[in-house]
Amino acid sequence: MENFEFFSPTKVIFGKDTVSRIGDEVRCHGYRRVLMIAGGGSIKGNGVYDATVQSLKTAGVEMVEFWGVRPNPVLSTVYAAIQMARETQVDAILAVGGGSVVDSAKAVAGGFYLKDIWEAFENKVLIEKALPLFVILTLSATGSEMNAFAVVTKTEENKKWAVGSPALFPVVSVIDPSVQVRLPWHQTVNGGVDALSHIMEFYFLGSVEETTIAIDECLLRTIIRTLDRLQADPGDYDSRANLAWAATLALNGISGAALQGGDWATHMIEHGLSALHPEVAHATGLGILFPAWIQHVQDCNLRQFQRWAERVWETASVEEGLIRLRDTLKRWKAPISLREVGVKREEIKTIADNVMLRAPLGRLKNLDQQDVEAILELAW
Amino acid sequence: MENFEFFSPTKVIFGKDTVSRIGDEVRCHGYRRVLMIAGGGSIKGNGVYDATVQSLKTAGVEMVEFWGVRPNPVLSTVYAAIQMARETQVDAILAVGGGSVVDSAKAVAGGFYLKDIWEAFENKVLIEKALPLFVILTLSATGSEMNAFAVVTKTEENKKWAVGSPALFPVVSVIDPSVQVRLPWHQTVNGGVDALSHIMEFYFLGSVEETTIAIDECLLRTIIRTLDRLQADPGDYDSRANLAWAATLALNGISGAALQGGDWATHMIEHGLSALHPEVAHATGLGILFPAWIQHVQDCNLRQFQRWAERVWETASVEEGLIRLRDTLKRWKAPISLREVGVKREEIKTIADNVMLRAPLGRLKNLDQQDVEAILELAW
Repeated sequence: MENFEFFSPTKVIFGKDTVSRIGDEVRCHGYRRVLMIAGGGSIKGNGVYDATVQSLKTAGVEMVEFWGVRPNPVLSTVYAAIQMARETQVDAILAVGGGSVVDSAKAVAGGFYLKDIWEAFENKVLIEKALPLFVILTLSATGSEMNAFAVVTKTEENKKWAVGSPALFPVVSVIDPSVQVRLPWHQTVNGGVDALSHIMEFYFLGSVEETTIAIDECLLRTIIRTLDRLQADPGDYDSRANLAWAATLALNGISGAALQGGDWATHMIEHGLSALHPEVAHATGLGILFPAWIQHVQDCNLRQFQRWAERVWETASVEEGLIRLRDTLKRWKAPISLREVGVKREEIKTIADNVMLRAPLGRLKNLDQQDVEAILELAW
Repeated sequence: MENFEFFSPTKVIFGKDTVSRIGDEVRCHGYRRVLMIAGGGSIKGNGVYDATVQSLKTAGVEMVEFWGVRPNPVLSTVYAAIQMARETQVDAILAVGGGSVVDSAKAVAGGFYLKDIWEAFENKVLIEKALPLFVILTLSATGSEMNAFAVVTKTEENKKWAVGSPALFPVVSVIDPSVQVRLPWHQTVNGGVDALSHIMEFYFLGSVEETTIAIDECLLRTIIRTLDRLQADPGDYDSRANLAWAATLALNGISGAALQGGDWATHMIEHGLSALHPEVAHATGLGILFPAWIQHVQDCNLRQFQRWAERVWETASVEEGLIRLRDTLKRWKAPISLREVGVKREEIKTIADNVMLRAPLGRLKNLDQQDVEAILELAW
């Protein structure tokens, strides 16, 4: 078993009707004026916005509103929100939305104290300080609500890059699964597939790490089962809640303990892809790319891939496991090839070039340009 | 799925040769002078003391030493250590040892700012502030290294009681499983049984809480398997490490998410027992009492007890599951009855009286004096 560190200081408040807790939490931590960061307005449809406003008001916390974070969030939005945070002199950030909103809010919180937050994405400066971040999560997927990472795209350079710092852990994250009950099916699937892929980024580095590996298998099976149930009955609260908690655990350190920090090549290939094709949702890209990556690298740790086939897909062969994974994605109405989402075969080299900007990538197998092209070919 | 909160801010540094990290951790958090709290000297035999002294010295952290914490730690020791902490004007506490040392250190850290720490155990005052606590764990069992609870005995009143406060979370806990390789077998077993019992305090409250329940089953099976392996080969590092991490996860909030805070009746009965019989190790008492509690309360949530029998013991019947649990304990050379550890049958009422001082107890079934006596009879 490899050495590791586990640090996950975010307080999670989980369950029905918990949004109303946010005001007291912000207030008890000593803050009086928050910049709310949100997306396109879905939180006005599901009651979350009203509950947030009411809760802050009751607690005597002022709120300034920043709207307009998009899926695959972009740097220009982050800059605009940082400017608003400075002008309005808030003392905390409140993200209300899904992973894109939370990631943008982290970049705002860290960028508040920097000349240019993008320099942190480029590893030129460290984020040593950030505005305290509070989160109300409306879509379980990225795990961003309980970790210290953020992914943002700099559109003009086609760079979708990640940044991390202990200063970026949310102070408190409120997760009310009942607000996710009316999500469109494809968003539910994307959330689940994103969570599955986070676990798999760690899992395949395993060998004897029994505790973590066993937990990861639990989480993979739980996510698959709850998605199946939600496809049959989108209003099934218990499945929503189990999916939501499993998605949080998929990337708060538990799923990766002793697994060398994870592989992350598939995520980096996806970032290279969706930087050029922002219309492809992050999880859609992952669902397409992960089976291809498995095909390409399975011989590097064959026993673990076989274990995955056995424990998750109940078959002895990795090939059959891959078929079942792709069949499951199809059953969930998720695309399983790049051509289905409009990527042209002749773009593969351009995408691979973009991916290699962030090289080295991959821990199980260190991927070069040829590897990345081969994976994209398999995914095409 | 029930609502819950998850908060576990302790940073864990886990793995081989990690004790040498403690000096930098204390220093980086801004402290210069620690009170080391330890037990009877076993840390001088396994190299942990020397590594600690060296690490603190290198980091420029001064150390004052307090020795003498016993298993089933007592209040008088805590008072003495608080006095030393005050006289020597330390700015942090460093626990080096197992659960008894960590629990005592928590009481010292909290008691430093109180007139009488026992008043917190009696729920007369709250612990709102504590000296920062650092931990080097030498025996995985209680999970105290990553939670905010402590259990201490006030000998003169036969009270073995618990206290909790968010101020008591260790700042950093170092867990090096390799220092546990030379533990006597009965201590390894006690550690594992303690961890099993922590999970079971939560598990039997489950119904549909799939994510947590599935993780709990993983942890139960992992602990049983790793103990079996360590019985065959005490030097097996991977099994030590997996057992250690599972024991930490057994009581850091993960195993209890959405399980209503747990039942804890069995622990309270054990506290009543070992307050009167301090020679009975905490985990020995739990191993004896848990099967009896299961026998007595199984009808309150029969489906979950059956699930436990199936998933953990591979049998459809709770009765057969209980037989396998007791057989496993016997195989591990752990006592399975009160009479084996020298408790007389006529003491049952006295023990039950002592337990009821801390009533109400039990969430799955609220136990009265008759219930407690019946459980003790079954355990006898």
